Amino acid sequence: MDYKNLAQTYKTPLYVYDFDYIQTRYLTLKNAFNARKSLICYAVKANSNLSVLKHLANLGAGFDCVSIGEVKRALLAGANKYQIIFSGVGKRDDELKDALESDILMINLESEAEMKRLEIIAKDLGKKARISIRINPDVDAKTHPYISTGLNENKFGVDINTGKKMYIYAKNSEYLDPVGVHFHIGSQITELSPIIEAAGILAEFVRELKAIEIDIKFFDVGGGIGVIYDNEKEIDTYDYAQGILSKLNGLDVTVVCEPGRFIVANAGVLLTSVLYEKFNKQKRFVMVDAAMNDLIRPSLYEAFHGVELVGKSKDESSCDIVGPICESGDFLAKNVMLPACESGDIIVVKSVGAYGFAMSGNYNTRGRAAEVAVSGGEHRLIRKRESFEDVVALELEFMK
Amino acid sequence: MDYKNLAQTYKTPLYVYDFDYIQTRYLTLKNAFNARKSLICYAVKANSNLSVLKHLANLGAGFDCVSIGEVKRALLAGANKYQIIFSGVGKRDDELKDALESDILMINLESEAEMKRLEIIAKDLGKKARISIRINPDVDAKTHPYISTGLNENKFGVDINTGKKMYIYAKNSEYLDPVGVHFHIGSQITELSPIIEAAGILAEFVRELKAIEIDIKFFDVGGGIGVIYDNEKEIDTYDYAQGILSKLNGLDVTVVCEPGRFIVANAGVLLTSVLYEKFNKQKRFVMVDAAMNDLIRPSLYEAFHGVELVGKSKDESSCDIVGPICESGDFLAKNVMLPACESGDIIVVKSVGAYGFAMSGNYNTRGRAAEVAVSGGEHRLIRKRESFEDVVALELEFMK
Repeated sequence: MDYKNLAQTYKTPLYVYDFDYIQTRYLTLKNAFNARKSLICYAVKANSNLSVLKHLANLGAGFDCVSIGEVKRALLAGANKYQIIFSGVGKRDDELKDALESDILMINLESEAEMKRLEIIAKDLGKKARISIRINPDVDAKTHPYISTGLNENKFGVDINTGKKMYIYAKNSEYLDPVGVHFHIGSQITELSPIIEAAGILAEFVRELKAIEIDIKFFDVGGGIGVIYDNEKEIDTYDYAQGILSKLNGLDVTVVCEPGRFIVANAGVLLTSVLYEKFNKQKRFVMVDAAMNDLIRPSLYEAFHGVELVGKSKDESSCDIVGPICESGDFLAKNVMLPACESGDIIVVKSVGAYGFAMSGNYNTRGRAAEVAVSGGEHRLIRKRESFEDVVALELEFMK
Repeated sequence: MDYKNLAQTYKTPLYVYDFDYIQTRYLTLKNAFNARKSLICYAVKANSNLSVLKHLANLGAGFDCVSIGEVKRALLAGANKYQIIFSGVGKRDDELKDALESDILMINLESEAEMKRLEIIAKDLGKKARISIRINPDVDAKTHPYISTGLNENKFGVDINTGKKMYIYAKNSEYLDPVGVHFHIGSQITELSPIIEAAGILAEFVRELKAIEIDIKFFDVGGGIGVIYDNEKEIDTYDYAQGILSKLNGLDVTVVCEPGRFIVANAGVLLTSVLYEKFNKQKRFVMVDAAMNDLIRPSLYEAFHGVELVGKSKDESSCDIVGPICESGDFLAKNVMLPACESGDIIVVKSVGAYGFAMSGNYNTRGRAAEVAVSGGEHRLIRKRESFEDVVALELEFMK
């Protein structure tokens, strides 16, 4: 990609997404499950730009949403409503109501209390709510504590015994229709065995449910497939699909898979301009125009993102790449090798297609970056750069 | 404050700021420096709501800004332009240009490269830029590594020797007017001695500069005065002012102070509604409608914020207060004692007036909270709740 040209055309900081790569990744996963009924529901939270969603909807993807806002995004982007799942650990009443009225595929529940709320709301609307329940298989996903979700000590899902009680309750309710089971043990998982172990536990559970005539149609294995940021080893999608399918012997279910990061992480880069270099004693700092408000992953998760200086390769030395925000936590990369930089040089921060723009904000009254899609050698704006006027729009009229 | 009523009137999550408390805090600090020429420049980054700025401008406050967006906010809120300082570790050319054209009090520089850029831009505009230089006194502020800024190994400021060279260069430049010195050693500082030590080092430096006829008029001691979140001991403002002034014997300078957190942190609460309670094995979780997108401090800094359930006090037990976002890192409080909660109960998260709303975002397509000011028993909206339409506004037209 001609990053220099993109930076000149759209200015920096700039998120750039490779739509062809997104397509490849979606199809790779879809094809891995080809022997079986499957539904790939893209996890909107990873990158919720409407054009990204539309691109995936055009490919036939479903959507995994964790707020009514995400459901609305998916519908707006042209998703098939019967391919939308509403997940999430805490849904408001108005969200449950809107989801029921939107007639989406199913609502994924995470607690008994939530099920009771949904039943009341469905009754009020005279509807029968299609549900799945998130079961916590108590399996360690071996990932960052903040994104590990499969152990019982965290807020997600219910244990198997509670789950069974909930399914029986739902089956006997006039307003609930239990059609799916769900698990999701964490994010950025690079070891296959915890996922297969969880799939095995849940498959056995589905057999138990079928034995008491609770007919589960959707076997939702969540997302969490890790990607390569640095030197990780990526799970092979064929092994992944086969591993899961091997546990489903004799079960007539559609496998639902919820990849987010897998599809978009390596599709995205953040382009940022060098402001200047500076040395404090022995330490070299490259100041750039992107900051933690644009990309919080390095600061929040100590996440690694590869970096590259466009068009230069000589005289590399170690430096920190830091932004203009007044916190020591405002860095994009630490102790990385980079050639000598001049003001205006472009640095590419890699693998930021997931949880990059989606987690950005306006800290230090910084307008958010623009977003651009590249496909077949063409580029186009998919989100306008946020202006000062945009940032203060919701408060200006109230100043007095 | 009648939190129940505020939550009903404006819905939740809701930021509520006590404008009377803000006034008291501003005046406390202002009065502590009464014996001396002083300028209290509120650090806009802590809470940049236009109504908060207007309230402080009406009291006579100046403003410390770290982006051109913040400078624009201050001007929009009615600040006196000669009481605005533009600080920050990496300023873009367009920001320097806008700042010069706005004719603000001074631009605080953090590197030689930045000084050279500013000189060129000032020359282009035919202006003489009033500057200060941020000197890094190499003093340990003894606070969180992410908000400690006074040591030489971080990105802020320049060391004293570099600083001296820069002042001499500036004095000899037609387009630069060195009028101030600046230091800022960190944030949430609860020990006075590092600040006084830094003030002493800088006062000595100013004497050296005066000896070579560089006439420093503004002695900017930065901000960073800690507040009470839990059981911290707050620095006494009288001791603070006296400690600094004691180092300024014989120097005719205006003391500039840049408090942010000190003024607004304890003025703000976040009201959030309980969605439901849930137990995973022995662990109790209270799910609420606010999340890390509304308040990231607990997740990012492991910050403590006191919590209180409105109107209930019986049957307290330990719990985590968690939001609806799909990350284990999405929590507002861990292992806190709270009475049994029901859906719709209001929880008050305390001391969130600083770095609360300012760091919020739209993760999981969650619209940002509304903000309300309370003063003299009256309340009023100062920022509208962000709608779904607001969130997608900048990308909708580009979806195709």
